[in-house]
Amino acid sequence: MLRWLTAGESHGPALVGILEGLPAGVSVDSEVVRDALARRRLGYGRGARMKFEKDQVSFLGGVRHGKTQGGPIAIEIGNTEWPKWERVMNADPVDLDELASMARNAPLTRPRPGHADFTGMQKYGFDDARPVLERASARETAARVALGSVAQAFLAGLGIELVSHTTAIGAVAAPVDAPLPTLADVDALDADPLRCFHGETSAAMVLEVDDAHKAGETLGGVVEVLAYNLPPGIGSYVHWDRRLDSRLAGALMGIQAIKGVEVGDGFLTAARRGSAAHDAIIPAESGGIKRETNRAGGIEGGMSIGEVLRVRAAMKPIATVPRALATIDTATGEETTAHHQRSDVCAVPAAGVVAEAMVALVLAQSLLEKFGGDSLNETKRNIDSYLANIPASLGSTGV
Amino acid sequence: MLRWLTAGESHGPALVGILEGLPAGVSVDSEVVRDALARRRLGYGRGARMKFEKDQVSFLGGVRHGKTQGGPIAIEIGNTEWPKWERVMNADPVDLDELASMARNAPLTRPRPGHADFTGMQKYGFDDARPVLERASARETAARVALGSVAQAFLAGLGIELVSHTTAIGAVAAPVDAPLPTLADVDALDADPLRCFHGETSAAMVLEVDDAHKAGETLGGVVEVLAYNLPPGIGSYVHWDRRLDSRLAGALMGIQAIKGVEVGDGFLTAARRGSAAHDAIIPAESGGIKRETNRAGGIEGGMSIGEVLRVRAAMKPIATVPRALATIDTATGEETTAHHQRSDVCAVPAAGVVAEAMVALVLAQSLLEKFGGDSLNETKRNIDSYLANIPASLGSTGV
Amino acid sequence: MLRWLTAGESHGPALVGILEGLPAGVSVDSEVVRDALARRRLGYGRGARMKFEKDQVSFLGGVRHGKTQGGPIAIEIGNTEWPKWERVMNADPVDLDELASMARNAPLTRPRPGHADFTGMQKYGFDDARPVLERASARETAARVALGSVAQAFLAGLGIELVSHTTAIGAVAAPVDAPLPTLADVDALDADPLRCFHGETSAAMVLEVDDAHKAGETLGGVVEVLAYNLPPGIGSYVHWDRRLDSRLAGALMGIQAIKGVEVGDGFLTAARRGSAAHDAIIPAESGGIKRETNRAGGIEGGMSIGEVLRVRAAMKPIATVPRALATIDTATGEETTAHHQRSDVCAVPAAGVVAEAMVALVLAQSLLEKFGGDSLNETKRNIDSYLANIPASLGSTGV
Amino acid sequence: MLRWLTAGESHGPALVGILEGLPAGVSVDSEVVRDALARRRLGYGRGARMKFEKDQVSFLGGVRHGKTQGGPIAIEIGNTEWPKWERVMNADPVDLDELASMARNAPLTRPRPGHADFTGMQKYGFDDARPVLERASARETAARVALGSVAQAFLAGLGIELVSHTTAIGAVAAPVDAPLPTLADVDALDADPLRCFHGETSAAMVLEVDDAHKAGETLGGVVEVLAYNLPPGIGSYVHWDRRLDSRLAGALMGIQAIKGVEVGDGFLTAARRGSAAHDAIIPAESGGIKRETNRAGGIEGGMSIGEVLRVRAAMKPIATVPRALATIDTATGEETTAHHQRSDVCAVPAAGVVAEAMVALVLAQSLLEKFGGDSLNETKRNIDSYLANIPASLGSTGV
Repeated sequence: MLRWLTAGESHGPALVGILEGLPAGVSVDSEVVRDALARRRLGYGRGARMKFEKDQVSFLGGVRHGKTQGGPIAIEIGNTEWPKWERVMNADPVDLDELASMARNAPLTRPRPGHADFTGMQKYGFDDARPVLERASARETAARVALGSVAQAFLAGLGIELVSHTTAIGAVAAPVDAPLPTLADVDALDADPLRCFHGETSAAMVLEVDDAHKAGETLGGVVEVLAYNLPPGIGSYVHWDRRLDSRLAGALMGIQAIKGVEVGDGFLTAARRGSAAHDAIIPAESGGIKRETNRAGGIEGGMSIGEVLRVRAAMKPIATVPRALATIDTATGEETTAHHQRSDVCAVPAAGVVAEAMVALVLAQSLLEKFGGDSLNETKRNIDSYLANIPASLGSTGV
Repeated sequence: MLRWLTAGESHGPALVGILEGLPAGVSVDSEVVRDALARRRLGYGRGARMKFEKDQVSFLGGVRHGKTQGGPIAIEIGNTEWPKWERVMNADPVDLDELASMARNAPLTRPRPGHADFTGMQKYGFDDARPVLERASARETAARVALGSVAQAFLAGLGIELVSHTTAIGAVAAPVDAPLPTLADVDALDADPLRCFHGETSAAMVLEVDDAHKAGETLGGVVEVLAYNLPPGIGSYVHWDRRLDSRLAGALMGIQAIKGVEVGDGFLTAARRGSAAHDAIIPAESGGIKRETNRAGGIEGGMSIGEVLRVRAAMKPIATVPRALATIDTATGEETTAHHQRSDVCAVPAAGVVAEAMVALVLAQSLLEKFGGDSLNETKRNIDSYLANIPASLGSTGV
Repeated sequence: MLRWLTAGESHGPALVGILEGLPAGVSVDSEVVRDALARRRLGYGRGARMKFEKDQVSFLGGVRHGKTQGGPIAIEIGNTEWPKWERVMNADPVDLDELASMARNAPLTRPRPGHADFTGMQKYGFDDARPVLERASARETAARVALGSVAQAFLAGLGIELVSHTTAIGAVAAPVDAPLPTLADVDALDADPLRCFHGETSAAMVLEVDDAHKAGETLGGVVEVLAYNLPPGIGSYVHWDRRLDSRLAGALMGIQAIKGVEVGDGFLTAARRGSAAHDAIIPAESGGIKRETNRAGGIEGGMSIGEVLRVRAAMKPIATVPRALATIDTATGEETTAHHQRSDVCAVPAAGVVAEAMVALVLAQSLLEKFGGDSLNETKRNIDSYLANIPASLGSTGV
Repeated sequence: MLRWLTAGESHGPALVGILEGLPAGVSVDSEVVRDALARRRLGYGRGARMKFEKDQVSFLGGVRHGKTQGGPIAIEIGNTEWPKWERVMNADPVDLDELASMARNAPLTRPRPGHADFTGMQKYGFDDARPVLERASARETAARVALGSVAQAFLAGLGIELVSHTTAIGAVAAPVDAPLPTLADVDALDADPLRCFHGETSAAMVLEVDDAHKAGETLGGVVEVLAYNLPPGIGSYVHWDRRLDSRLAGALMGIQAIKGVEVGDGFLTAARRGSAAHDAIIPAESGGIKRETNRAGGIEGGMSIGEVLRVRAAMKPIATVPRALATIDTATGEETTAHHQRSDVCAVPAAGVVAEAMVALVLAQSLLEKFGGDSLNETKRNIDSYLANIPASLGSTGV
């Protein structure tokens, strides 16, 4: 029963996340988290904030001398800009006259279409969008990436490797049959301006971002997450909410700005005929069995099948569009244009890193459900024992 | 906290579902459930089983004299074929010699690619795929449709209306800008061979099914679910697993054979530029506000926004393909072709009805989280009071 | 993630329970469930209903040929009295004139103190207590006992044995230091009129029941559940809701009429001084370690410690007291006495069986969290491997 | 769906808690939390640590200018002793030679009976009890008290008031029929050395603590939490885990060192006869109805009934007994005595404050399930509307 909560506002003192249920003995430290957060800032088309948004990472609990301790893991990510916001975002009451004089505290009453602003004010009874955008902001995903990096360290301890990459920026997409990156390609991916593994496409993407920037536009795109070496049988067909695909879809769609999710070939598969839509089971050269293709993206019947896991998420263009969108001023009821908070053109490369984090958390959760374990060693023993007990006729290679 | 569980096997005595947390006072009876189940059997391209699969519906608890009672609601769907399966699927031990002589009980050792068969055997330690396919079968969705029909009765009591329809069969898709059906169109939809609202497309779909049938093929497709009159503010941006889009994606991807999910324009939106991707907030003629477009599918920031909710699911072709797929015989390790259990060409229209049920359950759950209520009247009062307290400047029309 | 739901009303067609998450390969059949339900009807001081309440048990799913199949397990317990209640409790609408003429359908407007009647009407908006008492009735515990018997079969497959017994009836209590029954004593316990293991006390309890009966009174008491052979380390100190004692307390207090719960010596321990309140760790003769005493009831730091688990529940006297209690007629507002539905003096022996079922479910849940496993064999392997890997210095006896 | 997680170790940099699901608009600030934490340090018989354990409280998220914002609320409680522990408890790897020289880092291999030490080492695979006691320590309850103080602020906004007090220290108990304290008595309670409302008993308790101190002993006791003005109908009889008594029992038993829980008269009720065990429903002078007595502690059928809620928890004596208990050295296997970490005689008064926090969290959770609401105003409106719609014949006084 792995579970987690995040808290914190975009301009508050810190983001914080707690991850409960991870075994003891996993190797992780603050450097691991800082690296993950640095990868979240990558990507061509990000505005100024990404540059100054240095991450002050500290574990508040759950890790000692580079190893998890079995208890809840808490990570705090300090906001280096906090002194500028300390009055505006203070938890305790602040002198009203002082506040009134601060531009930063001016009520935000021109809610942005595509954001939570407008409905958030209705739902929570606010007359200012500030409290909405502070929490709805994608800044919150830093906490998920932090927790995800710990989950990923757990997976790594079990030999499971995650890789994320960008497959489309706006209308510019990598070929469907482009080769998939592996763990060995991650440094190259991180060095690519858009974290795209297909060089030609990456170059076209850069041009697309430049063009959109000139036009006062923003861009969305598609990211893909791959998991290698996942044992078969994670997730289950016995109840819908135990299905690995269901959990992955919920986790990916739960990322800000995601509007579509696919497993394997997804919508493309829906357009195929049956004989060209599935993955034949054939003997592997090494003994055991393998699949002739991987259209299913490594999941059948809601379970991992031992092939590479492959899931994709479609991100809409950033909703804070420089060519501002029409809205209503909620203070006056007048028509106006939406307020404007930041100036990125495209956040898709970062979304890949966030998606990787969510996938890591879901995989860790489903692995622990099947294998249990209160220490990395115990979980590992249980996995090894499971694999060793699969009969040869069912594809075991005697792992 | 609405929650539900289903149980039962494809050829067992019955399917059963329990829905816990629904308010008292909702009008529902066995006719409502039977109607929903009959709609699940609709669709051109279904094989013989759908015809004899008459549903014996009974409430075992939770409903009295046509009203829910506040306690858990249990629905049993009897299997009319049970006498034929009574020995093979008996819960209690059965004479082994008797079993050995029954063709129905022959071990299923040629697992079908695209199904749970192979991995299910590995995971649960079976030497026969029977226990896997019995539970993994799409027959289980009858229990979800039954529970969903009760959730839908609750929504109807609040004025919220759901409509599902087919937007693609294989490569044949309705135009992107085709008009959306409303509640008034449901009878016509149910009468259409493929539950497609676009006449010309429906005709082409029939031809496609015929062609696939001749070719020994199967087909997938895409279904869409619409919700009308949903109040704004269901779901939340404050935590990922409170997001309505996250829950809907998990629920839809949790249906057998679904490989992709979209909210609103989904993947199409990812390819657009920002100024053409969002929904401007403008004054409504009637007072209050409205959206100029509905690309977001009625969800922003993880919340319903008061526009029509629109979600889609992509279904892969039926994996039991008449032109049987390559597999391994798990008894011998020999290469062979997969066993073959049924002969539908296409189950997409039924998937629309199942998707509608899952959406109904998720919407009921999220509504109850925001509004509470132990009786329909109480929930309704709370919604009305919420809407009446949204200030005019935030779009209230004084409902 | 073991979870379960029950449904059904006291006079409805059936009770039903679904247990989701139990591994495959557990030996259980309808006889096991029937036996458990028969034990729930035991006990001196039960009225007429217990005698005619024959249980028609059938598995609707999850078990085949005497083994669990990995999917949700559904058990239906038919109501043999259903023909008498078929009109009054029908799920579908019934002719109102017909209903009006039936004494069984007369509105219950004299709510019984000590029951859910009065507040249930307020909460759910009823003008009749019928819907409240139908679900609030202790008849519902039959569904828990049925599910608990399956959980207990799982525990038995792992060598874990549960025993329940009565330690007090009203003011008559067994001595604090009376010996504890083991699995070998269960038949004798079930044969004892009050399921009390201390002969002398049992005899006094019979007299107490007789005396209460004559006086038009009802009685409560205390039951205790013991678990033998539970491995150490079930539950956890790392978060309050992972603690085994927390879960057991919630499960026991969640039984109708329970007002107090203790682990080990409970309230008695609170009155002791520290040097006489804990259980010294000493070498075991057999190698490994043991505890000098078991005041903690086998739980320290929210975890099982390898000693006998011991929990107790205090049951209030049956609230439907023959000497009827003062109440208000909710139809008229007049003072009156409460309606009277049954005539048991004491249900404490049955409560022991129900408590045993709840303990079984909680233990199975916490075991699966630690050890995982999709088949009994897999769970068992994981437990054995865990025990074998505890170092000798930490008490392993090389199991 | 109110939920919460805590994290942090006893000697780590900080404790932290996140509370997710609380409505916006609740008045709370860091002073409120600090006051609650100060009350947790109260009580005669505490050792030196309580005095230097100053709490550095800061909200990391969820509260702005003294009001909750609808998002998750995170509270950090800094450890003022952190500089002394910074090497020993560092999350990142530390030079091993440096560590080896530090007395604070010496392995703890003499596990204390009554604590999680021994089983925690077995479960998580540690060869040192340090990681166990760091998390299992009662210091963690500071995070619960912090979160509970926010829940209590929410309850206060709804007019619901909590009071906790000590009813027994060791064998010294207040009379069963002693008057109950109300909110007006809290200052006096906090000023009492043992937070006991019965003066004479309090004086005897002081003597008992002194005596135990001299004898090298520790003491446990019993605390009680009261809730005033709780509306009827919180919790439910429809499913065991919806019962308010079940949740309260789980929450109280989930506090370190608690071994028994009672609702209302608890075990005493189990010894009574039916006619003297329940609470007659009678007309109230003011109109509406009331109960003649409150033996049930304000809960019937798993629901609040509108009377004062009354629950008790029994705490065992502190397990770190100065007269050290027998144990095994896990490094050598030799018999020895347990290590000794602190020197309190009695922590019962503090346990009352912790119990109050847990009750506040559970009540807030159950209230939100019934009434929903995203702002305090919305929840309040829904409660008022519910009460106003209870018919006069069911006891409404026209609130």
